Amino acid sequence: MSQGTLQRVRFGMIGGGSGSAIGGVHRMALALDGRGELVAGALSSTPERARESAREIGLSAERSYDSWQELIAGESVREADDRVEAVSVVTPNHSHFEIARACLDVGFHVVLDKPMVCDSSEASRLAEAVASSGVSLTVTYNYSGYPLVREARHLVASGAIGAVRKVFVEYHQGWLANDLESSGHKQASWRTDPAQSGGAGALGDIGTHAEHLTRFVTGQAPSELCADVRTYVAGRRVDDDASVFLRYASGASGVLTCSQVCIGAENGLTLRVFGDAGSIAWQQESPEQLVFHDANGKRTVMTRGGDGLSRDAADATRTPPGHPEGFIEAFANIYRGAIERVRGIDSSLSRFAPTVEDGAVGVRFVEKCLSSNGSWVSLSD
Amino acid sequence: MSQGTLQRVRFGMIGGGSGSAIGGVHRMALALDGRGELVAGALSSTPERARESAREIGLSAERSYDSWQELIAGESVREADDRVEAVSVVTPNHSHFEIARACLDVGFHVVLDKPMVCDSSEASRLAEAVASSGVSLTVTYNYSGYPLVREARHLVASGAIGAVRKVFVEYHQGWLANDLESSGHKQASWRTDPAQSGGAGALGDIGTHAEHLTRFVTGQAPSELCADVRTYVAGRRVDDDASVFLRYASGASGVLTCSQVCIGAENGLTLRVFGDAGSIAWQQESPEQLVFHDANGKRTVMTRGGDGLSRDAADATRTPPGHPEGFIEAFANIYRGAIERVRGIDSSLSRFAPTVEDGAVGVRFVEKCLSSNGSWVSLSD
Amino acid sequence: MSQGTLQRVRFGMIGGGSGSAIGGVHRMALALDGRGELVAGALSSTPERARESAREIGLSAERSYDSWQELIAGESVREADDRVEAVSVVTPNHSHFEIARACLDVGFHVVLDKPMVCDSSEASRLAEAVASSGVSLTVTYNYSGYPLVREARHLVASGAIGAVRKVFVEYHQGWLANDLESSGHKQASWRTDPAQSGGAGALGDIGTHAEHLTRFVTGQAPSELCADVRTYVAGRRVDDDASVFLRYASGASGVLTCSQVCIGAENGLTLRVFGDAGSIAWQQESPEQLVFHDANGKRTVMTRGGDGLSRDAADATRTPPGHPEGFIEAFANIYRGAIERVRGIDSSLSRFAPTVEDGAVGVRFVEKCLSSNGSWVSLSD
Amino acid sequence: MSQGTLQRVRFGMIGGGSGSAIGGVHRMALALDGRGELVAGALSSTPERARESAREIGLSAERSYDSWQELIAGESVREADDRVEAVSVVTPNHSHFEIARACLDVGFHVVLDKPMVCDSSEASRLAEAVASSGVSLTVTYNYSGYPLVREARHLVASGAIGAVRKVFVEYHQGWLANDLESSGHKQASWRTDPAQSGGAGALGDIGTHAEHLTRFVTGQAPSELCADVRTYVAGRRVDDDASVFLRYASGASGVLTCSQVCIGAENGLTLRVFGDAGSIAWQQESPEQLVFHDANGKRTVMTRGGDGLSRDAADATRTPPGHPEGFIEAFANIYRGAIERVRGIDSSLSRFAPTVEDGAVGVRFVEKCLSSNGSWVSLSD
Repeated sequence: MSQGTLQRVRFGMIGGGSGSAIGGVHRMALALDGRGELVAGALSSTPERARESAREIGLSAERSYDSWQELIAGESVREADDRVEAVSVVTPNHSHFEIARACLDVGFHVVLDKPMVCDSSEASRLAEAVASSGVSLTVTYNYSGYPLVREARHLVASGAIGAVRKVFVEYHQGWLANDLESSGHKQASWRTDPAQSGGAGALGDIGTHAEHLTRFVTGQAPSELCADVRTYVAGRRVDDDASVFLRYASGASGVLTCSQVCIGAENGLTLRVFGDAGSIAWQQESPEQLVFHDANGKRTVMTRGGDGLSRDAADATRTPPGHPEGFIEAFANIYRGAIERVRGIDSSLSRFAPTVEDGAVGVRFVEKCLSSNGSWVSLSD
Repeated sequence: MSQGTLQRVRFGMIGGGSGSAIGGVHRMALALDGRGELVAGALSSTPERARESAREIGLSAERSYDSWQELIAGESVREADDRVEAVSVVTPNHSHFEIARACLDVGFHVVLDKPMVCDSSEASRLAEAVASSGVSLTVTYNYSGYPLVREARHLVASGAIGAVRKVFVEYHQGWLANDLESSGHKQASWRTDPAQSGGAGALGDIGTHAEHLTRFVTGQAPSELCADVRTYVAGRRVDDDASVFLRYASGASGVLTCSQVCIGAENGLTLRVFGDAGSIAWQQESPEQLVFHDANGKRTVMTRGGDGLSRDAADATRTPPGHPEGFIEAFANIYRGAIERVRGIDSSLSRFAPTVEDGAVGVRFVEKCLSSNGSWVSLSD
Repeated sequence: MSQGTLQRVRFGMIGGGSGSAIGGVHRMALALDGRGELVAGALSSTPERARESAREIGLSAERSYDSWQELIAGESVREADDRVEAVSVVTPNHSHFEIARACLDVGFHVVLDKPMVCDSSEASRLAEAVASSGVSLTVTYNYSGYPLVREARHLVASGAIGAVRKVFVEYHQGWLANDLESSGHKQASWRTDPAQSGGAGALGDIGTHAEHLTRFVTGQAPSELCADVRTYVAGRRVDDDASVFLRYASGASGVLTCSQVCIGAENGLTLRVFGDAGSIAWQQESPEQLVFHDANGKRTVMTRGGDGLSRDAADATRTPPGHPEGFIEAFANIYRGAIERVRGIDSSLSRFAPTVEDGAVGVRFVEKCLSSNGSWVSLSD
Repeated sequence: MSQGTLQRVRFGMIGGGSGSAIGGVHRMALALDGRGELVAGALSSTPERARESAREIGLSAERSYDSWQELIAGESVREADDRVEAVSVVTPNHSHFEIARACLDVGFHVVLDKPMVCDSSEASRLAEAVASSGVSLTVTYNYSGYPLVREARHLVASGAIGAVRKVFVEYHQGWLANDLESSGHKQASWRTDPAQSGGAGALGDIGTHAEHLTRFVTGQAPSELCADVRTYVAGRRVDDDASVFLRYASGASGVLTCSQVCIGAENGLTLRVFGDAGSIAWQQESPEQLVFHDANGKRTVMTRGGDGLSRDAADATRTPPGHPEGFIEAFANIYRGAIERVRGIDSSLSRFAPTVEDGAVGVRFVEKCLSSNGSWVSLSD
């Protein structure tokens, strides 16, 4: 390994200025391992706020741009060893497609929040753009970055629970149990505005995480679904609650629920997978434990960082067992995957980082749920 | 309270001999508080086993009968202050109706396991029999006997969580994940034999508990459901897994799942109810805690026996907080309710003990799930 | 097993009338399995209350006695197949010795609450009385009756955790964090009155449970201790908090803490035993799980009633896994042990039921803690 | 806040090269918030390894030094706006004093791991060096950086639990249950070598964390202690287990245990504080919850990031509730405190970052435990 000195991947960021919830998370995830660095930004669509945000985080004035178009233009003309190599797009959903495609067009790798885009048409076109660009796109389905989620995937793939029969996944929050958007709350406002959210509410914001997590762990996508989608808060223009039956070609079935009106729930993302020879259970709010039952029902509680875990889990691990890793570390594993993609490194981190295809499946899932109206619909149409 | 000495209610038992899982539970529940006593039995349909079982539990030979018909006949002719006042029926489901009706006909109160009977027709006729008998019938939906389930009901009824929006209830077991019935396992055999089970499998055995628990706590019954019912174990003749969407006239909705193929699950009965001003969560396997979130999401963990609980919960409580009560004590609360019914005592225990109407709702619920085939069906037809 | 009909052991009870906390527990524990029956009582030292209490629980007026002396006298003259065979003594501690010895003297087996007696002198004399009586004495160290405590003992005895190095045991309550005794609270009053409690407070009431539990599970008694004993509530005449270092001849060491001023603690009895090849952990408030770590730190969570458990645990089990057993069932296992002793049955239940020797060790432990004054004292003096 | 662009604090690091456990943690903690940057290093005492480690982490060859002396010399002669402002010292304990003092002497702020130094004499001299240097020294008692630890401190300080009566703190690990040091394991080797560890084993490595955490939360230091210190693994030259009674001038008392032979324990740091009007409990392995009991025993579970928490907790928080923060984030809060000290910012982060005085108390605590021999010793001598 005695090659040259590590060269950090140079990132730009579009969106993520003051008041953004997720911009700071992306920056922490990028910074954590010292393998990437943020060198440019168009942090807000309001130029003054963009500049102010840049100052706050120590970005040079020279590379703080007033719009995403200027960032692309300005960085494109810099020297190859100086300009951004990748761009993190953390704007509201409706602008994902246009920005991401523009980045790809000039050869910048893209890291993109979920839901990737607003509809399947955009998803298809974005996939084409990636294919023709020669660079990569990574979707931050960040929960798949938890080490014990990687272990869960490994256990299922290695046959430890046998053939999957039943999946229960849920993602419950309570923060939108009331009409928070009317108060001007920034996060609530754009997420419940169909024009910015991409059309869906809870389904796009958290249901798509549950969908991806399940698919990542089981290695299967459902072929049919039946969804009961609801809006509980009066006046809200998007769904805030959905329950979905899943059927798989393998004969497995499942239940996915997502809701933002579950008072008391914070980020209650829980996955249980039952096979014919065992089962696993994992909860995002206690991410350091994975419960495994063998065919006889014997219960083992695995902890992150322990000796017997798979290489996939170890690759995603930073601290010894009992020194908790959390959300930011999991997010950083997606970033490490994106960075290794940029650098052409083949590893579990780069292989597992969600792709444009993963993003497209998620978009399609949300569309089908919204069109189900309580009846069964095929996902392969 | 300085009246005469306590007179225990005299019970007979039909079924529940050696090898029975539930007979012993009924006897412990009956004995626990010293307010009832078992004085007669027809403990098995096999006469020799009935007699042997009677000896094992200390029942007098004189009042150990060779058949349930003989028990009814034999006890009916004893003196009024000596004969059984109530009969516990703990036979497989298919014989519940006939036995219960015969008991009612001679004026014996009845305690009956769930599912109460095999179909709605039997349920209607049994309800009529109760009405015309002048005595009571109690169905042992035992989970409603837990003190903190009573507290949960009280909280919902008193408005502590506001209007109910969302219900999640599940009852997951793993003991039938394999073809246990082929091995001759007694409990597995009759429960998976449609002729004895009443037609349903998991739905009748545990789904009906989930249905009752939810109804007991919320005070609402769904008006429509959509069920995805499955049999995972090859060759099995009844359902072993079901997922059910629920819709309520109030606008609330819910998801009920029950399964007997969830390896590692034991008696995983969990209820969560979310209202527009709070929520509650309770798990049968940790029955001593009830989690309450107020409208601001503040989390209080209530423990059984504590000072601030309702009278309803206190009525069902025997030991101080931290000295765990469990399944048998909850079951005994149903028996105390039945006994107080026999004695004509009005109390939360007697009021809350499930009735023939509760049993009928449960039977109907199972029927509708089995006929849904993944589509919405009305429960009011 | 086709002998004659089960003959229940006939019990009398001394103490345990209205207002008693523990009398009802003893009666439920006795009744639960239908192998014993309460036929006589001197339920209170106040004759009228004794009679009233007897009526409330359905005891015949004829066998409700006005004093314990009358009970012994009255029962002694009944026919052998009618009179009590055993007596449960549930009076405050200061009267244990006199009553128990009187029962033994007339050949009644004794079931006695802890702390067994008030000092080591009484303990020695009681041990002699048992030896010369030909009958048995059982001390209700009830926590040792939990099935998973029996499993823990089995695991240690079978070498599953190797040689014991370290023991942590605690019994924390909060109910005496304030001067409850001044309010006239019955339980608080006698337990904090040295004349009735036997001299100790928390140490006698709960510390002795922790001591026995540890000894039962590890099979070892400490040889030295160093105790820091305190009284936090002003005006209280007994200890309400104690911390004790333990040293064992084997080289093991431990820490025992007991306290009644830990606000929020209910009956927080927790035992952890670390060996050189594994460890176990158990909590009384979650008694249905036993955590086992093997030499590699692999964590298995054992649940009561499961397949892989020892015969000792199975003997103490009534319901399948996931149908919680609790405090009363554990207590009933001590009673089953006492009953099997009376009947001369050799079983794990009768072997494990605590003896007069166990009671004497507990009394000595308390004495030594009270005399330690923060210095090391030998337990073998 | 529209001043100039954020200027990151420039750090150097001494120690922390390949194979170091803690070097990477310090770097992640430093990088997480983008307020500091690592610009120089002497990452190993072996020059070739120092250079290789520098390349791996992207440190320029020019500022990778072959020894800590060269780092200090080389950086001191750089321009003021370019040279390191602070140095993280992450070497084994025995070299802390010399290195830290040398850094202070040239005006570099110091961040130092615990135990700060090897004895009280070094501690006094280091405190003097800080006083005369005009720069700051921060000791990474990292567990005090958890947001809910800050909340716990706030609750105690604000009187929410009344006057402290009883403290239970434990830090249990199992990784040294066997003679791991003989295998050449790097971390085990130096930590069990008295010449490098500073003399203590478990007490210095983890006991001192427990001591600081307790003092941080309660605001009190014990005045006397009595310690039972042990070495369980044959041949080991330092303590691997200790139990300590604590007495406070306020009348409070406590029990501190630390052990590295508790098989199955990972980083089991748990603190419980009982006052006369409430209590708190916190566990490092589940750092996102703080359990609070009020004077009536009502149990509230507080989660990090929630609305009702104190400013102190909020200052230390990055993600919303339910998106777990962990060990690295807590560590980063200590770094943020150190950075704000360097910048002269007064904030809860800078005020709470542990000082040389905190480090000195910890060193003294360890010394006194080691000299106690099971007897009471004063901490004020």
